[in-house]
Amino acid sequence: MRYLLLTSCAAAALVASSASGNEQLQKMSQNPKEWVMPTGDYANTRYSQLKQITADNVGKLQVAWTFSTGVLRGHEGGPLIIGDVMYVHGPFPNPVFALDLNNDGKILWKYEPRQDPNVIPVMCCDTVNRGLAYADGKIFLHQADTTLVALDAKTGKVVWQAVNGDPKKGDTGTSAPMVVKDKVLIGISGGEFGVQCHVTAYNLSDGKLAWRAYSGGPDDQILVDPQKTTELGKPVGANSSLKTWQGDQWKIGGGCTWGWISYDQQLNLIYYGSGNPSTWNPKQRPGDNKWSMTIFARDPDNGMAKWVYQMTPHDEWDYDGVNEMILADVDVGGTTHKGLVHFDRNGFAYTLDRTNGALLVAEKYDPTVNWATKVDMDKNSKTYGRPLVVSQYSTEQNGEDKNTKGVCPAALGTKDEQPAAYSPDTKLFYVPTNHVCMDYEPFRVSYTAGQPYVGATLSMYPPPGKKNMGNFIAWDAGKGKIVWSVPELFSVWSGALATAGGVVFYGTLEGYLKAVDAKTGKELYKFKTPSGIIGNVTTYEHGGKQYIAILSGVGGWAGIGLAAGLTDPQDGLGAVGGYAGLRDYTSLGGQLTVFALPGS
Amino acid sequence: MRYLLLTSCAAAALVASSASGNEQLQKMSQNPKEWVMPTGDYANTRYSQLKQITADNVGKLQVAWTFSTGVLRGHEGGPLIIGDVMYVHGPFPNPVFALDLNNDGKILWKYEPRQDPNVIPVMCCDTVNRGLAYADGKIFLHQADTTLVALDAKTGKVVWQAVNGDPKKGDTGTSAPMVVKDKVLIGISGGEFGVQCHVTAYNLSDGKLAWRAYSGGPDDQILVDPQKTTELGKPVGANSSLKTWQGDQWKIGGGCTWGWISYDQQLNLIYYGSGNPSTWNPKQRPGDNKWSMTIFARDPDNGMAKWVYQMTPHDEWDYDGVNEMILADVDVGGTTHKGLVHFDRNGFAYTLDRTNGALLVAEKYDPTVNWATKVDMDKNSKTYGRPLVVSQYSTEQNGEDKNTKGVCPAALGTKDEQPAAYSPDTKLFYVPTNHVCMDYEPFRVSYTAGQPYVGATLSMYPPPGKKNMGNFIAWDAGKGKIVWSVPELFSVWSGALATAGGVVFYGTLEGYLKAVDAKTGKELYKFKTPSGIIGNVTTYEHGGKQYIAILSGVGGWAGIGLAAGLTDPQDGLGAVGGYAGLRDYTSLGGQLTVFALPGS
Repeated sequence: MRYLLLTSCAAAALVASSASGNEQLQKMSQNPKEWVMPTGDYANTRYSQLKQITADNVGKLQVAWTFSTGVLRGHEGGPLIIGDVMYVHGPFPNPVFALDLNNDGKILWKYEPRQDPNVIPVMCCDTVNRGLAYADGKIFLHQADTTLVALDAKTGKVVWQAVNGDPKKGDTGTSAPMVVKDKVLIGISGGEFGVQCHVTAYNLSDGKLAWRAYSGGPDDQILVDPQKTTELGKPVGANSSLKTWQGDQWKIGGGCTWGWISYDQQLNLIYYGSGNPSTWNPKQRPGDNKWSMTIFARDPDNGMAKWVYQMTPHDEWDYDGVNEMILADVDVGGTTHKGLVHFDRNGFAYTLDRTNGALLVAEKYDPTVNWATKVDMDKNSKTYGRPLVVSQYSTEQNGEDKNTKGVCPAALGTKDEQPAAYSPDTKLFYVPTNHVCMDYEPFRVSYTAGQPYVGATLSMYPPPGKKNMGNFIAWDAGKGKIVWSVPELFSVWSGALATAGGVVFYGTLEGYLKAVDAKTGKELYKFKTPSGIIGNVTTYEHGGKQYIAILSGVGGWAGIGLAAGLTDPQDGLGAVGGYAGLRDYTSLGGQLTVFALPGS
Repeated sequence: MRYLLLTSCAAAALVASSASGNEQLQKMSQNPKEWVMPTGDYANTRYSQLKQITADNVGKLQVAWTFSTGVLRGHEGGPLIIGDVMYVHGPFPNPVFALDLNNDGKILWKYEPRQDPNVIPVMCCDTVNRGLAYADGKIFLHQADTTLVALDAKTGKVVWQAVNGDPKKGDTGTSAPMVVKDKVLIGISGGEFGVQCHVTAYNLSDGKLAWRAYSGGPDDQILVDPQKTTELGKPVGANSSLKTWQGDQWKIGGGCTWGWISYDQQLNLIYYGSGNPSTWNPKQRPGDNKWSMTIFARDPDNGMAKWVYQMTPHDEWDYDGVNEMILADVDVGGTTHKGLVHFDRNGFAYTLDRTNGALLVAEKYDPTVNWATKVDMDKNSKTYGRPLVVSQYSTEQNGEDKNTKGVCPAALGTKDEQPAAYSPDTKLFYVPTNHVCMDYEPFRVSYTAGQPYVGATLSMYPPPGKKNMGNFIAWDAGKGKIVWSVPELFSVWSGALATAGGVVFYGTLEGYLKAVDAKTGKELYKFKTPSGIIGNVTTYEHGGKQYIAILSGVGGWAGIGLAAGLTDPQDGLGAVGGYAGLRDYTSLGGQLTVFALPGS
C-alpha cells in the first residue's frame, strides 16, 4: 500500500515536470495497476496483466463500492485510474468526478461544464460521451458541445479550452480524446447532420490547434500526399477524395470520426476509422465517397496520412468504419505480421499489416452477414479489397422509396463503438457483437445546417429464426474464424476486457456484468447492475487488490428508446422497435459499480 | 424454494378471495419472509424475525443484485415484498415497478402516472414519495399530485383512482398509504402552503371516500367528540381546535399528515401525528393552534378521535409532530404499559399509554435540545404535558424580523420522517437522528393559494463545538435515556431496521448502508451505495435466503441542495447551507441495492 502510494506520487511528479505527455503516458499505460487512457493502452487491446482475479476465483467476485453520476441516459466509456484517484465521466451535461480510491470514492472534485441544452437534439444516438484522457497532470474532456477542455487533474480547474466544432451545424462531441506525444487528438460526430468530419490535434500545453485532417475534401484538407499516401500499396493520387463525390456533396459528406484512436510508437502512426458518407440515401451521392468508411494511418506530428483503406465504398447501409483498430502481432498463414485488427460495422473483420495497410484477412464475423458475399481478396482483380455487394440487399440498386428488406447486419452493424479486447495469452480477440438485421428505405432529403440529414427509414429485428440480438465471440484474426460464441438476448453494447487471469469481462444491455473463460467462453460469473451496460469494463489494482469497474446506464443507439423515452418503432433510426423488449429488463441509470474478490 | 412459492401463492389466493384486506394483511405482516406494508408491521416496529444474518456473519454481507429506478432526486421509503415479487417506487413522477425475485429483478410491469410537473415547485422538501401499500391484490400509490391510485398487483393496471387534494392550492402527496380493515388511509402534505390538512379513508374496494378527519377546524371536521375524546385524560370540550386559532386562520392552518400511520388491531385504533401550524411565523397565529403538532388516536372505522395529545402548542420552530408512533410494550417504573413511543421533531421522545393517551415519559433524546427545559410532568401543574419554553429561543417572544440564534434542534428536528425501529429482543428503540441547530427569523407573510406560506428564514449548522450533524442512537423508552449513540457526519435520514439476528441497519446521507450490533452499536459492516441514502432498510427472505434491501437517492429536506441543484445557503428552508458538505461525498441517484450472505 505504502509502496503503491510512493510509486503513484513519483509517477505524478515525473509527468508534471515534463511537457511531453507521451513517454510518461506510454510508461504509465504499461503499469497494469493504473488505467491511464480510455482504451487501456495505445494498442487498444484492453488487456490487463493483472491476474489476481482468475478463472478459478472470479465466481466469488463481490461488489466493493458504487457511485452514481447523477445523470441518466446512456453511459458509454469507462473511468480512468491514476494513482489513488479514479476519474469518472457522464453523458450530457458531461460531469467529471475525481474520486478518492482511499476513501470509498469520496469526491475530490467535480467539474460540470455549462452547455447549451440545444445540443441534445443534435446528438443522433443518445447524449453519450466515451470518456476522458489524461496526460501531463491534466484530464481532457470532449464536451457534447465540442469544447475540448483540459482540467487540472488535482483540482478540476480549467487549464485551457478549445472549441472543436459548431453544434448549430450539427457538430457534437461524443468520443474520447487520445493524447499522443505533445498533442491531444479528438474526432467529431455529426454524420447524420451532414458535417464534414475531421480529426484534430491540439497542443497538450496550451490547446492551440496543431493540425486538422478531414475525412473528405481537397488533398490539403484531408492531409494526404498523392504520391506517398497509399491504399492497398498504391498511391492514392491527386484529388483522391474530391473525384469520388458529385459536386460539393463532400462539404456535407460526413465521414465522422467518433471512434477510438490507436497509436504505434515505433511506427509513429495513429490509426482510426471514418464513418458513413452523408446522407444515408446513396442515390444522392454517386461515387465511392472517399474517404468515408476508411481506416486512416496518420503521422501524429503533422497529421499526414501514410496509408488508407476504404472498407465500404459508396455506403448504402450506414456501415460506419469508426470502430477501433487493435494493434497486435497476428500470425497469418505462418507469418507473423504487425497486425491491425478491425471489426467493422459492415460485418467483416479485417486484419491488415499496420506498417503499410496491406490487406491480410477479411472475413464475416457473423454468419448472417448477407449484404456482400465477401471482400475480394484477389490482388489482380479490379475490385480487389472491395466487398462484393449482393444486388438484393443493395439499397442503391433497389432505389429511393423502395424498402430493401432483410439486410444483415442492421445499420448499427455487427459491432458498433463497443470496443473489442485482445489477449496475447490466447491470441484471441473478444468481440461484443450485434446480431440484428434491418429493412432500409432511402428517401430524398435536402440539407439544412443543424437539421437531421438522414434520408432513410429503418426497422431492426433479430436475424430470421433467431431470438438473440447479440453474441459475444472469440475471434481468430489470423484465420478469420469464430472460435466460440456466446449468445446474448440483446446486442452486446459494452466494451470487453481481457485479463492475464484468463478471464474476459463484458456487460449486457439488461445490466449484467459477465465474466467468461478466455479459452472457452464459459460463463463464470454474472451480476445484475442497476441499469443496462453500454460502458467498457476496466480493471486496476489498488492497495494490493485487483478491481473491476463498469459504468451502467442504458442508452446509446441500441438503447435510445429507453434513454430518450421514444416509443415509435421507426424512431431512434430504427432501434426503438428492435430493442423494445429491453424495457422489461432495465431502466435508466448512471452508476459505477466496482468489484473485487472478498477479503483484504 | 418450492415450499416458499406454494406459500406465497396460497397467501395471494386468500387475499384475492376476500374484500376485507385487514385480516390477511395482519397475517401476511407476521410472515417475516415478506414485507407487506411500508412500515413492516402495523406497530411500526420495523423489526424482522429473520435471523440468517447475525452479528457474527453480517460482516460478510454482499451485494446480490441492484436496480435503477430511472429517476434522480430523493428516494424515501422502501420496497414491498409480496410472494415472489418486489414492488419498488420512486419520487416524482412516481414510477412503480413490479420486479421478479426469481429472475434478478426482471421488470414484470411498470406503472408511471402522467402528472402535471407544476406539482414539483409545490413540494416543499424534495419530490419524495415514502412508499406503497398492498392489500387485496392491489398496490396503492399516493402520487405527488395527490391522486391515490389502486393498481392490480399482477398487471399494474389501474383498478380505481381517488383525488385526495388540489396541488394548485398546495396539496401534495408524499406519504405512504396504510390499509386498515376495508379502508386505505392516507395523509396529505402542504404545511408550507397553508393547507388545512387531513387524514382520509378511502374504501379498499372502490376508492370512494369513507371519512376525512382534519387536524384543525370545527369539531365535525376534526372528528372529535367533545366529551369522549380526551387529552391527558380530560375531555377536549367543544370547539377544542377553533378556540385556539384567531379568526379563520385554521382554514390555512396546516397540521399536515405526511408521516406514518400505526394500528392496534386489539384496541381498533390508528395513530399518527400532525405537522406544523401555518405559517412558520408564530406572531401571525396566536393561540395553541390545535390540533397541529398532535398525536391522534382514531377509530379506523369512522375516524372519530379517542384521544389526542399536542406536543408543541403554538409551534415557533416548525417542529412537526408527524413522526411515527411505535407500538410496543414498555416497562415504566416496573409497570408494563401498552406503549406508544414517538420521537418528535421537537427533540423530546414521548412514551404514552396508547389505550388512553396517558403521558408516561418525555425526555430529550439529544442533549443539545435547548428550546425547552423539559416537558412538565407534574399532573397538578397548569402546564402539565407542555414543554417549558426557554425565552432566549422563543421566536414568538423575540418577535418578527428578529433572528433567534442557536435554537436546537433545527426546524427539521432531532428526527424527521426517517422512521426508528424497535427490537423486542433488546427492548431498545433504534433512532436515526439529526444533530443540527438553527437561526430562525420569522417575518410576516400573506396567504395566496398555491404559493409558499412559510414566513421564516433559517440557517442550519451542527451544535456548537460539534462536527457531526447526526447520531444513530439506541433509546430506552421506559427510562427515557440514550443507551448508546453512534455519531454520523450528516443527519441519519434513513429508516432503521431491527432484526432477530441482533443486527440493526440504517443508511447514511453519504450513501453507506451500515450494520451495527443491536446491543452495543458497534459497527459490523458498511457498504457505499451509489448515492446518499434517505430510504428505509427492508428485509425479506426468498429461496431460503435473507435479503436486505435499501433505496439510494440523496435528497429529502436534508439533501434538497443536491436534489434541486440549490446553492444559496438560505434556500431549501435553510438546509442548503447546513448540508453543503454533502456534495463532497455523493451525487444524485435512484437505485435499489439488495444484499445477502455469500453462498446459495
